[in-house]
Amino acid sequence: MNALKDKILASLQSHDVLSGQQLADMLGVSRTAIWKQVNALRSLGYEIQATRNKGYRLLSSPDIPLEAEVAKGLQTTVIGRSLQYFPSLSSTNSYATSLIQKGVDEGTVVVADIQTTGRGRKQRPWSSPSGGLWFSVILYPPLPPTKAMLVTMASSIAVAETFQQMLGLYAFIKWPNDVLINGKKVCGVLTELDAEMDQLHYMVVGIGINVNNDLEPSLDHIATSLQQEMESKVSRIQLLREILKRLDDYYTLLLRGKGEHIRATWLSYTTLLDKTISVTTVNAELKGTVVSVDDDGSLLLRTERGIERILSGDITLL
Amino acid sequence: MNALKDKILASLQSHDVLSGQQLADMLGVSRTAIWKQVNALRSLGYEIQATRNKGYRLLSSPDIPLEAEVAKGLQTTVIGRSLQYFPSLSSTNSYATSLIQKGVDEGTVVVADIQTTGRGRKQRPWSSPSGGLWFSVILYPPLPPTKAMLVTMASSIAVAETFQQMLGLYAFIKWPNDVLINGKKVCGVLTELDAEMDQLHYMVVGIGINVNNDLEPSLDHIATSLQQEMESKVSRIQLLREILKRLDDYYTLLLRGKGEHIRATWLSYTTLLDKTISVTTVNAELKGTVVSVDDDGSLLLRTERGIERILSGDITLL
Repeated sequence: MNALKDKILASLQSHDVLSGQQLADMLGVSRTAIWKQVNALRSLGYEIQATRNKGYRLLSSPDIPLEAEVAKGLQTTVIGRSLQYFPSLSSTNSYATSLIQKGVDEGTVVVADIQTTGRGRKQRPWSSPSGGLWFSVILYPPLPPTKAMLVTMASSIAVAETFQQMLGLYAFIKWPNDVLINGKKVCGVLTELDAEMDQLHYMVVGIGINVNNDLEPSLDHIATSLQQEMESKVSRIQLLREILKRLDDYYTLLLRGKGEHIRATWLSYTTLLDKTISVTTVNAELKGTVVSVDDDGSLLLRTERGIERILSGDITLL
Repeated sequence: MNALKDKILASLQSHDVLSGQQLADMLGVSRTAIWKQVNALRSLGYEIQATRNKGYRLLSSPDIPLEAEVAKGLQTTVIGRSLQYFPSLSSTNSYATSLIQKGVDEGTVVVADIQTTGRGRKQRPWSSPSGGLWFSVILYPPLPPTKAMLVTMASSIAVAETFQQMLGLYAFIKWPNDVLINGKKVCGVLTELDAEMDQLHYMVVGIGINVNNDLEPSLDHIATSLQQEMESKVSRIQLLREILKRLDDYYTLLLRGKGEHIRATWLSYTTLLDKTISVTTVNAELKGTVVSVDDDGSLLLRTERGIERILSGDITLL
């Protein structure tokens, strides 16, 4: 944990009451620095009582995925070892990329309460108001770029599995990487990468989940949120922790050469197999039956002309 | 042509003599601006005579791949429409990437006489003294990243073909993308890319060729230069022009869906087929016979355990 704010919060969580001097001594900073960060926590919504002669007492916490919150009980090998939370960012992927230029550990997670210019695939805008979970994971996989899709697949599996196991919601993956509940989109994944031909330099896996945020009314028929599906608010802190755990598991598997297991798991989460669909690609509109998905993420479609391999496109179930 | 230096050079090349005032009028700039750039050209090695009452006359030109030189007779659709030459850069790939961040046309070429920190594959240093041809091409292919290797293949084909057709040297491609003459490396290709899962954002194809530069004595048994092979200096200007032409042809083919033609051509330039080799990968050392190369660039090797697909590694002919 790097940020003083997170260290203070973790200390207050593990003690009934702590004076400013005690916190200052424990964390090796001045009392003024403590006082400033206690106020910063209050402005985020933490209720912190200050009693003369006793000190600070944490009364209640909002659902904010600060590092001190998410890290509790998060035993991962790579992912989430460091986490940076911001009330607002232009885009967590863009910020993560800027961190990489400066040098940052693998597994670092960037979370924002609001993205002012959130992006989806192909530069489409992604609405990211307060209450959703918008985050990016920084990875340096020792793999060629042709294996990158397996990391993205691992991410959507981690999300779908968390929805099912933590919330009891049946989730499905729609090619390439949306997660749907009851046929409506609740999560999108935008992976960006930088590579040379036979080696990835970095990957930024951006995951956006409609949690407790209000949806745009115009998207009502195609999108949903976890709050809508559960009919109650969902903890973003717990949700993020659970997703990071599972992503860490699958990422570790992938690095051990178990990519085929990830592809097979991904296939078990898709409802597309044997379905008749139409795909709009850059060049054409194709109809056919889904046969499988390759480990480079391409869709294998049986059409009138035989098996076609679709590398990129938008699909509609017929 | 954007740079005033290139415009002045092109004007002097197409006129016997031009006064400072004539050049200033033609190019819409001040006589002082002309005077400065004429001196800049002189410092690059251009011999420009200034005669009172007559003006400037170009007496001789060094072999410097300025835009005005390379653009002569270069009829390409995308590649080389714009070219920036520098006496020295840290790395043409790095500079090209910085241009992309600012916004630059597809097909822009960056050339340097010297790279101070030239890079090869996997962050290996690449010696880039004066006299070699070190350049990068900026591309925005409307393709998924799984097709990127075909662009790199097109680049090594363009180089090998130029060596054969312009210089009569038999050139071969060594997997993944080195170009060899008489078994010694004369050219390396370092492609870097940025992408999301189903769409490339950009590619920077960096090509380094030992032309008239002195080689490090320690590399004598594995590297050669065009000058060594030809026993005379080779024009970098003509060489670059010829490579850009062929790369443009192959790139256009690729965008028309003729990737298979590129793979087949690449295969015709490799000496590896049916050869027994050993490959050092991150995880293992493998021996086997080369069967083919996939369109994602992976080597198909027949080993004792069956056909293995090698995504990345260094090979040695046995």
